[in-house]
Amino acid sequence: MRSRRLADGGARTFVLIFEAGDEVVAGVEGFAAEQAITAASLQGIGAFSDVLLGFFERDSRDYRRIPIDEQVEVLALLGDVALADGRPKLHAHVVVGKRDGSAHGGHLLAAHVWPTLEVVLVDAPDRLQRVHDAASGLALIRP
Amino acid sequence: MRSRRLADGGARTFVLIFEAGDEVVAGVEGFAAEQAITAASLQGIGAFSDVLLGFFERDSRDYRRIPIDEQVEVLALLGDVALADGRPKLHAHVVVGKRDGSAHGGHLLAAHVWPTLEVVLVDAPDRLQRVHDAASGLALIRP
Amino acid sequence: MRSRRLADGGARTFVLIFEAGDEVVAGVEGFAAEQAITAASLQGIGAFSDVLLGFFERDSRDYRRIPIDEQVEVLALLGDVALADGRPKLHAHVVVGKRDGSAHGGHLLAAHVWPTLEVVLVDAPDRLQRVHDAASGLALIRP
Repeated sequence: MRSRRLADGGARTFVLIFEAGDEVVAGVEGFAAEQAITAASLQGIGAFSDVLLGFFERDSRDYRRIPIDEQVEVLALLGDVALADGRPKLHAHVVVGKRDGSAHGGHLLAAHVWPTLEVVLVDAPDRLQRVHDAASGLALIRP
Repeated sequence: MRSRRLADGGARTFVLIFEAGDEVVAGVEGFAAEQAITAASLQGIGAFSDVLLGFFERDSRDYRRIPIDEQVEVLALLGDVALADGRPKLHAHVVVGKRDGSAHGGHLLAAHVWPTLEVVLVDAPDRLQRVHDAASGLALIRP
Repeated sequence: MRSRRLADGGARTFVLIFEAGDEVVAGVEGFAAEQAITAASLQGIGAFSDVLLGFFERDSRDYRRIPIDEQVEVLALLGDVALADGRPKLHAHVVVGKRDGSAHGGHLLAAHVWPTLEVVLVDAPDRLQRVHDAASGLALIRP
């Protein structure tokens, strides 16, 4: 386990309110680019009209795609924003709830909001970098 | 997507420890009124003896009620507190785990704690307002 | 419900990046001891190669053990670090997602990471204490 203490004194807190039809991954990454966000964590709740989940397969070193094409509550959206190839990149996982109360989830590949998604994002005055990891094929944070 | 940067320098962090029999929504809102909380986010873990979940139906514009009348672990309680009609209002979603390890969840309508629920709430020196949205019938945050 | 406002001005934020094979509970507690962490909350996402969940039984006052011996996405890891018998102790719950997108979860007893787990931990300049509670048999935070 590697660790780093982030720089203090000047963290910015943003509230992001997504509206009906907004796509979440593009929305967060567009906002992060505009605001020069480089070391953030976020949490959110709300609801999606559809979501594309991913499950990372050990064998293929790629995401299995799990589409959920129905209205779901967003029970827990957690993630971070770090730099990959110089640009802010979102890494988020999500738990969603169906009409029967059952919970499902995975890596967030894409999702559309209805009617709202409320996200709180805290950006530290620091930089986190993702670097390609040959063993997994993923870009992992190097602290 | 709309956004706002919250005011800095003076956020308050509270730890709330709920005890056996406490109801959570009333507990958070009563505390928020006492402390004049106006722009908070929170996270919590613990366990419930019962919980009433909601799933917002697109057609009826109302919550389908999903009662779970058994002991469950609270795996992720996430939410925010904003002002609605001048009073602090909790909006929270929850993921719970049953005895077999299966996860369920929804909008938190009400829940009783047993034996404990540990919540961390961070209140910014700012104000978030909820405003009625005619399209969904919900009071949404206007940032 | 009992509450306490944590001391301000000097919270430390750490990013912990777990690597393949790392055990999470030992990793967080070892780090917390090294850094003298006494009042922290944390959130994380990533993936496990295996995890041992717990469900606290009302009758036996003990954890039922629920092993999941397969690769899962870590959808939401939430918890806190407080002092118990003078040492920092992790209390964490976790929601995990299987290959079919179904969600499961419980109290985190132990877990091994593959390929990564990204945790953000915020430690307040304050102390939280756990004290044995005779009614439940658990060490609960006394705020």
